[in-house]
Amino acid sequence: MTSPQQHSLKETKGSDRNHIGVALGQQVIDVGALQEQRLFTGPILSQKGSCFRKEHLNEFMSLGTSAWAEARATLQRLLSSSEGAVRDNRKLIEAAVVPLASVAMQLPAQIGDYTDFYVSKQHAFNCGALFRGPGHELQPNWVHMPVAYHGRSSSILVSGQNIKRPWGQALTPGSLNPEVVPSKALDFELEMGCFIGSGNGLGESIPVDGADSQIFGMVLLNDWTARDIQKWEYVPLGPFNGKNFATQISPWIVTSEALKPFLCEAPEQQPPVLPYLQESKRSTYDIHVAADIIPAGSDLHYRVARTNFQTMYFTWPQMIAHHTLGGCNLRPGDLLGSGTISGGGPGQRGCLLEATCGGREPLQLTPVVNEEVPQDVDDTRRAQRLMRTYLNDGDMVIMSGWCENSSGEQLSFGTCQGAVLPSHKLL
Amino acid sequence: MTSPQQHSLKETKGSDRNHIGVALGQQVIDVGALQEQRLFTGPILSQKGSCFRKEHLNEFMSLGTSAWAEARATLQRLLSSSEGAVRDNRKLIEAAVVPLASVAMQLPAQIGDYTDFYVSKQHAFNCGALFRGPGHELQPNWVHMPVAYHGRSSSILVSGQNIKRPWGQALTPGSLNPEVVPSKALDFELEMGCFIGSGNGLGESIPVDGADSQIFGMVLLNDWTARDIQKWEYVPLGPFNGKNFATQISPWIVTSEALKPFLCEAPEQQPPVLPYLQESKRSTYDIHVAADIIPAGSDLHYRVARTNFQTMYFTWPQMIAHHTLGGCNLRPGDLLGSGTISGGGPGQRGCLLEATCGGREPLQLTPVVNEEVPQDVDDTRRAQRLMRTYLNDGDMVIMSGWCENSSGEQLSFGTCQGAVLPSHKLL
Repeated sequence: MTSPQQHSLKETKGSDRNHIGVALGQQVIDVGALQEQRLFTGPILSQKGSCFRKEHLNEFMSLGTSAWAEARATLQRLLSSSEGAVRDNRKLIEAAVVPLASVAMQLPAQIGDYTDFYVSKQHAFNCGALFRGPGHELQPNWVHMPVAYHGRSSSILVSGQNIKRPWGQALTPGSLNPEVVPSKALDFELEMGCFIGSGNGLGESIPVDGADSQIFGMVLLNDWTARDIQKWEYVPLGPFNGKNFATQISPWIVTSEALKPFLCEAPEQQPPVLPYLQESKRSTYDIHVAADIIPAGSDLHYRVARTNFQTMYFTWPQMIAHHTLGGCNLRPGDLLGSGTISGGGPGQRGCLLEATCGGREPLQLTPVVNEEVPQDVDDTRRAQRLMRTYLNDGDMVIMSGWCENSSGEQLSFGTCQGAVLPSHKLL
Repeated sequence: MTSPQQHSLKETKGSDRNHIGVALGQQVIDVGALQEQRLFTGPILSQKGSCFRKEHLNEFMSLGTSAWAEARATLQRLLSSSEGAVRDNRKLIEAAVVPLASVAMQLPAQIGDYTDFYVSKQHAFNCGALFRGPGHELQPNWVHMPVAYHGRSSSILVSGQNIKRPWGQALTPGSLNPEVVPSKALDFELEMGCFIGSGNGLGESIPVDGADSQIFGMVLLNDWTARDIQKWEYVPLGPFNGKNFATQISPWIVTSEALKPFLCEAPEQQPPVLPYLQESKRSTYDIHVAADIIPAGSDLHYRVARTNFQTMYFTWPQMIAHHTLGGCNLRPGDLLGSGTISGGGPGQRGCLLEATCGGREPLQLTPVVNEEVPQDVDDTRRAQRLMRTYLNDGDMVIMSGWCENSSGEQLSFGTCQGAVLPSHKLL
C-alpha cells in the first residue's frame, strides 16, 4: 500500500459492529474513530459528523466527489509524519489503529442493486464464436451499447468466503431432457466492479461526460458461473441460476481518487457510438488483473489468465450513461460489474469457458512465480502441470489486480479469493 | 374489505415517518400504535416488541408463518366488537385509527432483490409465436423450469406514482442502425407479485413441499416494459433498459393467511417436472385480475385484459424451489413477479404486445362497467371506442384484482395504477 487513501473498507475487529477503515501498510485505520474525535474539519465532512461511524460506506459514497477529495486530503494530513493530532494521541491510536491481519473483512456497502455488463469485445467475440460459430460472433447490438443484465445482490460475498458448487438443471450432452445435478462446469469470470457514488433520481439520465464523478471506486470481482446451468436456462431471459449462487468481490475499494495516476486512453470505437455515449475525452484505467487456481492441498498458484482492464471496449461512464438512459435510478453503493476481461493474446482469456474453448480443450497450467508463492519451491514442483477444464472441488480461485506506471507509482487491489466446496445435500 | 387482517402495508399520515397499518373498511389501523400498548400478547409477538414499529414490514416478514397467524388472530380479537381493549380506549383510537383517504401509500418492504418469472404458458406461447413463428413458440426449457430473470429493485414504485416514458436504443423497422428515442412501444404487463417471508441461507435450497410457508402475501404488479428497447437489447443477456425504468405494485399486501379461502387446484403439468419441482399437492390461488386503460381527460376504464392467476403453469412454491435450487438466498421482503398473466381466450392477454399481436393489430377498446365507473355515463359515451397499439402519453394503466368463492367470501387487492408522463429531457 503506497498511501493511506487508496482504500475504504468495512472491517470488523471482533467487536460488536463493523467499522469503516482505510489501509496503511499492514495496519488499518478506523476512520470512524477519527471522526468521533472531530478530526474531519473540512467544510463538507465537518457537517457530516457520522458518515464514517456506520457499518457501511453508503452514506459517504452518497456525498460525491468533493467530499471524497476532502476525506482523502484530511487523511493524508492526519496520517503524515509531520502531523501530531493522531501520532501524539496514544489513546486514539489504541482505539483507531488495528493490525490488518486481525480484521475480518465485510462487504463495504449495502448493495441495493448489482448490474453485470459484458463490455470486453474479445470476451463477447470468443463466447459468440463458441455459441454461434464463425461469422456470427458479435450480436448486432454489441458495438452500439454496453450490454448488461441485472444480477443478484443477496449472494454477493466478500473475498475469503467459500462457494458451494451449485445444483441446477442442465442437459446431458446428446439428451433432450434436463437432469438436476451439481454443476459439472463451474467457472469463474475475471471482472472488475465499480461502486456508484451519489447516483441519480428515477426518471433522470446521467450524461456520459461527467459520469466519471459517479465512480466511487473499484474492486476485483469474480462472477462465479455454472456454464451447464447457464447454457440450458439463458434463452430468452438471460442468466439466472447459472450465476445467482455467488458473486465475489475484493474487500478493499480502491477509490477513483487513488486511481487517477493510472488513467489512460480507452480503445477506439468503430462504428461511432450514438451521441449519448460519445465522450469528449475517452479515458479508462490501466489495471493489470490476473486469475489463478490453487488446487486443494497446494500452495502453488496456477495462472489461468493475465490481462488488463484498459482493453474494455466501453468505459464506466458509458456504462453509467447507458444504464440511466431510460431513467433507471442508481443508488449510492450500487455495484456494476464490467464483465469478463479478456485480451486477444494467449493466456489472456478471463474465464475457463473461453480458455478451454467451451470445455473442449483442457488447460495445462504451470505455476506462477510471484511474491505470494513460496520462494523455496523446488524445480520439480514448479514443473508440475495442473490439468483443468472447469473447476474441481477444493480449487481456490484467486484474482489479483495492480497498477504501476512509468513514474514508478504502484497500487494494489489485493485479492479476491474463494474456494469451491462440494455441493450441499438436496433434500 | 371483509376482514381486518387481509392487508399489511406501510403508510404515512403526513407525519415524520412511515407506519405499518392494516385496512379495516375505510380506515387504517396503525398496528405499531397497538404494539406500543403491548396489545400483541401472543407467545411470539410479545417477544418481538417492535416488529410493527418500523417503517417497513421486513422484520415481521422474517418471523414466519406462526408469527403471521398469531398477528392475524390477535388483530381479529382486538378489533372485534366484543373486545374493549381498543374500542374503549379513546386515546388509542385517536392515535391508531386513520381514515384510509388520508394516508399516502409507500412501499411495504425494503426490497433487496426483485425477480421476475415467466410462468404463464399462454403468454410464453404468444410471445414465442410473435418472435419465432409457428412451431417454435415455447423454448425447450420452458416446460421444465419456471424461467426467470433478475429485475431492478431501485425503480420499484407503489401504485399512484406516474411513469416517464423511457428513452432507449431501438431499431427503426427496416434499418440496421439503432436510434435513441423515447420508446414508441410502451407497454404494461399484468402480473402478480409475491413477498418472501423468512427466506433461506446462502447455499441452502428450499424444498418445494413447504415452500408455501415462504409466501408472506401477494400484490398486483405492473412490469412496465418498452418493447422496442427490449427487442433490440435482449439478446443474449435478457431484458435490461426495456424494463428497469419502472415496476409498480399495489400497496396493500394481501397475506397468504387471508388468501387461504381462495386456494384452488393448479394446472396439470405435462411432461412431468423434475423431482425437485414435484408437489405432493398442487395448489394455487383463484384470483381474478384485470388491466384497464383510462385515457387522459377521461374517467372511463377501457378494459384490455381480464384473466385469472390460477392459469399460471408453475406455482409460487415451484418458483421458490427453482430460485433456490443452486443455493441462491432469498431474504425477507424480496419480491417475485409471476410474469404476465394471460389466458387463452379473447380479452385475456395481459399485455399490449400480445393483445395487438406484436403491434400489428391495434385494439378497439370499449369501456367497462363496474363500481368505479360513473353510473351516469350516457350511452353515447359508453359507445366510444378507444384505439390503442401501445400506450399514449397521459394514459393511466389501472390493474385490479379480487377473489370471490362459492361461499360468498370476497377479497380485494385494490388497484395498481400509474399514468404515462412524457419522456424527460435528454441533456
